[in-house]
Amino acid sequence: MMLMLNGRLVPTSDRALSANDRGFTLGDGLFETIKVRHGRPLRLDLHLARLRDGAAILRLPLPLQPDQLEESISTVLQANGLHDAALRLSVSRGPGQRGLLPPDPCTPTWVLTAAPLPPAMGPVRAITAETVHRNQMSPLSRVKALSYLDNVLARLEAQDKGADDAIVLNTLDRVAETTIANIFVVGSDGVLVTPPVGDGALPGVRRAELLRSMVAIERSISREDLLNAREAFLTNALSVRPLVAVDTHAIGDGLPGPLGARLNREAEHE
Amino acid sequence: MMLMLNGRLVPTSDRALSANDRGFTLGDGLFETIKVRHGRPLRLDLHLARLRDGAAILRLPLPLQPDQLEESISTVLQANGLHDAALRLSVSRGPGQRGLLPPDPCTPTWVLTAAPLPPAMGPVRAITAETVHRNQMSPLSRVKALSYLDNVLARLEAQDKGADDAIVLNTLDRVAETTIANIFVVGSDGVLVTPPVGDGALPGVRRAELLRSMVAIERSISREDLLNAREAFLTNALSVRPLVAVDTHAIGDGLPGPLGARLNREAEHE
Repeated sequence: MMLMLNGRLVPTSDRALSANDRGFTLGDGLFETIKVRHGRPLRLDLHLARLRDGAAILRLPLPLQPDQLEESISTVLQANGLHDAALRLSVSRGPGQRGLLPPDPCTPTWVLTAAPLPPAMGPVRAITAETVHRNQMSPLSRVKALSYLDNVLARLEAQDKGADDAIVLNTLDRVAETTIANIFVVGSDGVLVTPPVGDGALPGVRRAELLRSMVAIERSISREDLLNAREAFLTNALSVRPLVAVDTHAIGDGLPGPLGARLNREAEHE
Repeated sequence: MMLMLNGRLVPTSDRALSANDRGFTLGDGLFETIKVRHGRPLRLDLHLARLRDGAAILRLPLPLQPDQLEESISTVLQANGLHDAALRLSVSRGPGQRGLLPPDPCTPTWVLTAAPLPPAMGPVRAITAETVHRNQMSPLSRVKALSYLDNVLARLEAQDKGADDAIVLNTLDRVAETTIANIFVVGSDGVLVTPPVGDGALPGVRRAELLRSMVAIERSISREDLLNAREAFLTNALSVRPLVAVDTHAIGDGLPGPLGARLNREAEHE
């Protein structure tokens, strides 16, 4: 495979990144996962908006313009012979010396990688992460930061327990999100809800789109609300997947709900 | 300068790291900052013990043995003509493909860099970080992880306000640590205390040494306790520095306290 590093195509196997890059030494940067269908990146405007919001919080000058990103995406897709793909754009604050303060000015690094789109995946059986809690008081819970280790640990815990993903609660024991997706729930009152960003939910691009296009509201969700839901589903840039079990409790009747099933099909064909 | 990457000496300016390294893409790894005097790394056993503890939490197989580390330290010091130095050892889970689950087996990456020991620095005037809170419920608050962006943001906030460092509170508004150091306080009752690890304090190596060698106890500290302290000081692997002001409030009489001043001198001459 080929990736693009600061505008230059290099083989994925090349060692082409500085060992002093603050992305590596401090997790100091951001990333986006972008779905590509038939050569066309989906929701690119929303991804760029979120990247800009994150960059403002981190005070990281973005090193590439929208035009340049679109062109780079084409180049990387072509270099890998991909029409459908999962892209990842990582932006770090670039190389730095000892200590936490960045050099001024800094020279941000950006990396664009492409992988084949993962095959359609079935319903999700999740656990509730025990070791990891989302810190809803951190500005980082609102940005997709390279400092992502909390989610790695929760995902490993899920793997240990034979589950597909982990529900991450915040420090007030409210549902925030999973390690890779936002959560939507049709409550026992029939209302479609998703946790607010203030509860530690990452402002996902598909979440934003669904909140705009459907009758859904942002409302705090307890683990009990989730277990008692009529149905639940998980959304991220790549897919929508029904959530059918949490910690061995069935959600609804334990089968994909009608809304989640429909959105899943739509996402598979978008 | 020269650094060591996976046992190989390379110029710091070289781009020698994989852009798919999980240290970069996910902050998936650990680091240690080690002080060197007269060519001798200080507290190496304590650093190695903490690194092993962190690796156990992350389930990251450590890629280098103590012997190899000692030899590598000598090599890096020699290559840079340094006798007194601040070393940084970073260990990541190595290159990975898309997603959170690591490859099995993984091939960890390690990087050893050396910089001249920073000159003796004076007393610290700190702020209390407003935007960032330590998540004492995360296992990551107990390991020195490559996912370090929270601390970068708090340090930037301190810089904005003309301060030297930021006190980071936990989600219960207790004092955890600063962005780079543990906090010790001589309370109004004359007892020397430092926040417990359960409050989000990183188990620092100098902190461990002081807890062993002095009459000090672990006890939760509120911001008010800190402001009312007789004296306070900050410790990390490189130094001990008196803390003389927090948010424009003087600590004690606003001058270095006797204990902090003595430990500062001892650290400068260790």
